[in-house]
Amino acid sequence: MAVNLAPPAALTPIAGVKWSTVGAAIKSAERDDIAVCWLAENTITAGVFTKNAFAAAPVTVARRHLTAVAPRALLINSGNANAGTGIAGEQDALTLCDQIAVARGFEQAEILPFSTGVIGQALPMTRMAPALSVLCDNDTDAGWLAAARAIMTTDTVPKGTSRRVDLGGGRYCDITGITKGSGMICPNMATMLAFIATDATIAEPDLHQALVMANQASFNSITVDGDTSTNDAAMLSATGQGAAIECNEAGWGAFVAALTGLMQELACAIVRDGEGATRFMDIHIAGAADIDEARAVGFTVAQSPLFKTAAFAGDPNWGRILAAVGRAPIDDLAIDGVDIAIGDVAIVAGGQPRPDYVEAEAAAVMASPEFTIRVGLGRGSAETHVFTSDLSYEYVRINAEYRS
Amino acid sequence: MAVNLAPPAALTPIAGVKWSTVGAAIKSAERDDIAVCWLAENTITAGVFTKNAFAAAPVTVARRHLTAVAPRALLINSGNANAGTGIAGEQDALTLCDQIAVARGFEQAEILPFSTGVIGQALPMTRMAPALSVLCDNDTDAGWLAAARAIMTTDTVPKGTSRRVDLGGGRYCDITGITKGSGMICPNMATMLAFIATDATIAEPDLHQALVMANQASFNSITVDGDTSTNDAAMLSATGQGAAIECNEAGWGAFVAALTGLMQELACAIVRDGEGATRFMDIHIAGAADIDEARAVGFTVAQSPLFKTAAFAGDPNWGRILAAVGRAPIDDLAIDGVDIAIGDVAIVAGGQPRPDYVEAEAAAVMASPEFTIRVGLGRGSAETHVFTSDLSYEYVRINAEYRS
Repeated sequence: MAVNLAPPAALTPIAGVKWSTVGAAIKSAERDDIAVCWLAENTITAGVFTKNAFAAAPVTVARRHLTAVAPRALLINSGNANAGTGIAGEQDALTLCDQIAVARGFEQAEILPFSTGVIGQALPMTRMAPALSVLCDNDTDAGWLAAARAIMTTDTVPKGTSRRVDLGGGRYCDITGITKGSGMICPNMATMLAFIATDATIAEPDLHQALVMANQASFNSITVDGDTSTNDAAMLSATGQGAAIECNEAGWGAFVAALTGLMQELACAIVRDGEGATRFMDIHIAGAADIDEARAVGFTVAQSPLFKTAAFAGDPNWGRILAAVGRAPIDDLAIDGVDIAIGDVAIVAGGQPRPDYVEAEAAAVMASPEFTIRVGLGRGSAETHVFTSDLSYEYVRINAEYRS
Repeated sequence: MAVNLAPPAALTPIAGVKWSTVGAAIKSAERDDIAVCWLAENTITAGVFTKNAFAAAPVTVARRHLTAVAPRALLINSGNANAGTGIAGEQDALTLCDQIAVARGFEQAEILPFSTGVIGQALPMTRMAPALSVLCDNDTDAGWLAAARAIMTTDTVPKGTSRRVDLGGGRYCDITGITKGSGMICPNMATMLAFIATDATIAEPDLHQALVMANQASFNSITVDGDTSTNDAAMLSATGQGAAIECNEAGWGAFVAALTGLMQELACAIVRDGEGATRFMDIHIAGAADIDEARAVGFTVAQSPLFKTAAFAGDPNWGRILAAVGRAPIDDLAIDGVDIAIGDVAIVAGGQPRPDYVEAEAAAVMASPEFTIRVGLGRGSAETHVFTSDLSYEYVRINAEYRS
């Protein structure tokens, strides 16, 4: 069902990063559901986490561990989010970290835990502990794709991509990232996890800044259903085994652009594989007074169930776009500045329907599985893109039957 | 498909109010789709309208006319919202007002137009004008139910109710209201129209205050899909043919309570008949610091597609309630103050899952077509109710196929 999305053909290994995967039958016995990312000594890691007040136990632990010491292992499980599990859930996460730490001679705080899946159930610790023992003896630097598969929940396609970056002066670095997510996708991220690494040598403040900037234009610019999960995290590790780069030099722009492009590709892969998605849409808001306003309008359109069901039907029911723009939480919107187009077919200009609009032309655009909705606000020069999917029968089926 | 909702058995006529209905084949030839509410001389009318910046042409005209002079007729059509139709749409609305005014000897501004239905198409004026000629010769004070039917769009059940109010001192008044709406339902109202009248004698400022107060607890406390329409309006007329009542006297509380109850019943009827609804839910938020906060949490839960699909399945997936509470737009939510219950089954206490929780008990509550979700925030004493429906296959079908 995913829209124009194939599994990655190949993912570039990153010097200093190895992966192990194993099956613990957390939700299903038929697949690997635990992955560990091993980070070489001297690796620097930055992270951004969910803003949900009910952050899951692993998020609480990972956030705390990350501020204490540079991580040596990222421990990820799918099938169970270890969220809404209270103090016992936090203890479970710490127990798993301990097991990895003891097996490899690390401190507990050098392990960051991540979980994704159903909320409100305890982790099956009796199955996970023996699986972790197996996993610790098996690792490979070619394990990125296997890891991308192990962290999937309702995803139908594993998601990953790589970039080689020309930093100038004959220097290059590689970036590879994997992600998962399909429902509960929203700004401030969702049931979404992303693990990205580069062999470049980058100081922590620069790395963190690059992650935050790229995150805004990628994982914080997508929505499938407007829900923000308790478990979202995006991690960026720099192993320091390749070229050095810092934020004051010429090559930095190339690095950030490549990172942003990679994260946008990963974020859009989540939308393309959005639960029940049959369309992938770029909501392009221009002419806003500032970027916050552009995002507010973009998300109001992208999250409108009426727009999303019309998109599912391929129906150019532009009145639903107009109604969503009109109720967006911005002050004093003057409708006579508003333009609306579907693809390149202009429909509303200056708040008035265009007399030359031909509905069949807009319908032809929406017959495609992928298209752009353009909204001009006529208030300034800020613009943004919000990426979203449609709302289909399949979305309802997946979410009504998730636990059955 | 409507949840515990039958057509009204009888609606009490209101002295000073008559209705006419007629069919103009606006969207379908098989039913009446125009209704006119005739208001006797000296009737006072108050109104509240959509806050959507793209207010439809009839809303713009009705708002302007209402400030100019007391209305003598409310002209309502279904099947076409006359929204997104620009200057031509406003001219069409005025032309229709003119026709009514000339036929009955009123001023143009004494007619308020209302439209509901599909957005972005011109009204079929050539069919509406002859229908209006027929209509002006046909009116009855028993026409409330026929009017409730004529204003329906995707509604499956006509909606109306009556109250007799004991004002004290041997005085009584009657209130009758009708409403329509089923999709695009949200705070600040929706594709929702409501027409309410009483025979009581009430001054305009008091009448307006009563409408605004009752509206907050009724039409502004419901959501089906989070979308706010361009056409919403709720009108309250007092014909002055019965007992006099004013806001400084003892009986005023009884009047406002009865009006609020009537409007809440009408608003909940919209949710019960929500597009594709199979469940009716009362989201009860308590322990909030203030009412705005309570409403913010209530609407975040009520609009979560993940919660709504779980409700459709009758699945007590309380993690989705918890995740929605956690992402609600309120500051500094401390999770250790949060309680969650489904019906009377307590699930989360002080932010921790209760060890005595038995999922089968919550599943039994959710097997019912109607139940309450209770969220305690532990921050204060404000509370509110938000009423909502579930998200089903049928919701998607209705909205994907609306224009086909």
